[in-house]
Amino acid sequence: MREVAIVGAGMTRFGEIWESSLRDLFVEAAAGALNSAGADHVDSIFVGNMSGGQFVGQEHLGPLMADHLGMAGVAAARVESACASGGMALNMGFMAVASGCSDAVLVAGVEKMTDGADVTNVLASAADQETEVYHGITFPGLYAMIARAHMEKHGTTEEDLAWVAVKNHKHGSLNPKAQFRGEVTVEQVLRSSMVAEPLRLLHCSPVSDGAAAVLLCPLDQAEKYTDKPVKVIGTGVATDSIALADRKDPAFLGSVEKSAERAYKMAGVTPKDIQVAEVHDCFAIAEICCLEASGLIEKGKGAKAAASGVTSLGGRIPVNTSGGLKSKGHPVGATGVAQAIEVFEQLRGESGERQVEDARIGLTQNMGGSGASSVVHIYQGV
Amino acid sequence: MREVAIVGAGMTRFGEIWESSLRDLFVEAAAGALNSAGADHVDSIFVGNMSGGQFVGQEHLGPLMADHLGMAGVAAARVESACASGGMALNMGFMAVASGCSDAVLVAGVEKMTDGADVTNVLASAADQETEVYHGITFPGLYAMIARAHMEKHGTTEEDLAWVAVKNHKHGSLNPKAQFRGEVTVEQVLRSSMVAEPLRLLHCSPVSDGAAAVLLCPLDQAEKYTDKPVKVIGTGVATDSIALADRKDPAFLGSVEKSAERAYKMAGVTPKDIQVAEVHDCFAIAEICCLEASGLIEKGKGAKAAASGVTSLGGRIPVNTSGGLKSKGHPVGATGVAQAIEVFEQLRGESGERQVEDARIGLTQNMGGSGASSVVHIYQGV
Repeated sequence: MREVAIVGAGMTRFGEIWESSLRDLFVEAAAGALNSAGADHVDSIFVGNMSGGQFVGQEHLGPLMADHLGMAGVAAARVESACASGGMALNMGFMAVASGCSDAVLVAGVEKMTDGADVTNVLASAADQETEVYHGITFPGLYAMIARAHMEKHGTTEEDLAWVAVKNHKHGSLNPKAQFRGEVTVEQVLRSSMVAEPLRLLHCSPVSDGAAAVLLCPLDQAEKYTDKPVKVIGTGVATDSIALADRKDPAFLGSVEKSAERAYKMAGVTPKDIQVAEVHDCFAIAEICCLEASGLIEKGKGAKAAASGVTSLGGRIPVNTSGGLKSKGHPVGATGVAQAIEVFEQLRGESGERQVEDARIGLTQNMGGSGASSVVHIYQGV
Repeated sequence: MREVAIVGAGMTRFGEIWESSLRDLFVEAAAGALNSAGADHVDSIFVGNMSGGQFVGQEHLGPLMADHLGMAGVAAARVESACASGGMALNMGFMAVASGCSDAVLVAGVEKMTDGADVTNVLASAADQETEVYHGITFPGLYAMIARAHMEKHGTTEEDLAWVAVKNHKHGSLNPKAQFRGEVTVEQVLRSSMVAEPLRLLHCSPVSDGAAAVLLCPLDQAEKYTDKPVKVIGTGVATDSIALADRKDPAFLGSVEKSAERAYKMAGVTPKDIQVAEVHDCFAIAEICCLEASGLIEKGKGAKAAASGVTSLGGRIPVNTSGGLKSKGHPVGATGVAQAIEVFEQLRGESGERQVEDARIGLTQNMGGSGASSVVHIYQGV
């Protein structure tokens, strides 16, 4: 298996981007990634996207995006795993390079959510239509049940959940690409309107437009593009039952644990080696569960991580230095690739005010649905 | 790069399968593939599917299908490239095995099209929404324009188109899994109702439900599953402009040519070496154009291939011995995998009345949209 490196990155700002279409967003991010590496050609393109079909009536994004990038002819395909689509596209791009099938691979995630679709309904199609959605549940409701289970089992409080939002907004205030750059207080979170008890508005990530792209190549060709490549040393994918009701412990995300174990094993590292991480905080409770399941925080101790400062910039293991999905925004198909970009920049020492000192090894964890799929990548600066 | 083999296959019948849901279809095909190889475990699953979201309100098919197969936990993702989704999933599965990331990979294609969605509109989302679909064009219209261009350039006639349908229905009459097992005559085709001039009803593939699955592993582990593995010796993917109007010659499918060239190069064979092929006959004109662009028939000579018997069972290069999309049916995400199964069985000598004598090397070509994407695989019996 060939060693794989990220050698370039580009992304749009995240937010309600009324002036850009789905294809505009893709091209801006992709061109940014190519230009950052001085690349004018790729062999293949993997587009992570949850639902161009339902959001804007457009499937077949592989050739569409290759065409609009001026690269019609290259291999291209779309990869979907709900909100883990971007991470899954990175996994596919990794395999394309590792196998020897491609020498230059563009991995991009993109979603256009604000063009008038019934967003809650479209997102719900990532849950089990037959046993969940048809009966009226939506994702805020599913994550509210996860939160209740975590509260019952581990004594987690509404204030613990609020601290996740406070931390991530604080990080996001330092990120020029973030959708929300204002800081929030615990009191503001606890006074914000109830969405699905115990989750309030400020416990939830927003609806966003955006795109993110990275350029991959074999490590031994990286010098063509950059003198600061970042190695992808581990990739792990796992699934769980799609319906939350089918899990023994709804507060434990088995797909996150399995995908992390697979990535750690491939990388030859342990959770203790991770110095910076982006995890899937679509709701505040998700960050807590993902930290526990990935081994970055001891099981049952995730709730206090944000409040105690362990996961803040300057803490033992800074988590979601980008602002996370909560503050940076969550254009669902783009999220997994944007996570990779944050860690890529951290390991290159390019994160400015958000820089984690001497970060050498980082991790991203991207999740689909209520944890039915998870993708973990581990990266090392060289 | 590790050598890759297909060691098992399973598929549902194709047709209007009212009694089975999307997940039922998947499980029937997947269990068939696993059972045929005596396998009770896989490392990863790639699901080819065009639009579960628009057809039945269900995205996130990777974990859903893993779960319903009783394999929640394994890696799984959906791959989409419109009607080439199945072929693209096979390409991803190939890379997963070739790279060393997975030792046992299930590649399945599935589509449920008859559950009440506006099928023509959903399929149209594989074309360019902004420059084609919003202005009223649908796929029969796009392929009608391709047919007109081919007629003008090469003198192709309506009767030539009819012969493609006659041949494929004749082949399909021998296939117990086919949606339409009745033979048709040239006169019947030419008397069938006009859909988009010059394409009549019997020039068009039907709307179908169905699923198809194959099991892949490294060639050196194939004996665990079967004593008749079939090697995948070439895989090629390519794109073209998504909008038909952006192509210099609408009658020539550049993505098919490029994807075939890439697959031939990897396989180290030429079109002359191919003894049996399945190509993408979503409309009769598509078979003609795909045969020319893939090099299986000389450019400009595709129109007479069916009428002359060259591409019939018993001819020089039998094409679409399964009945093709025209007669076997076209559950869009399943098609590319079903093509692979036909060639797999041909190279194992298991095609019964449809058997091509002494077939050793075969090819499948699967296309998305009006040729915006194409995937070619080349196979060799061992």
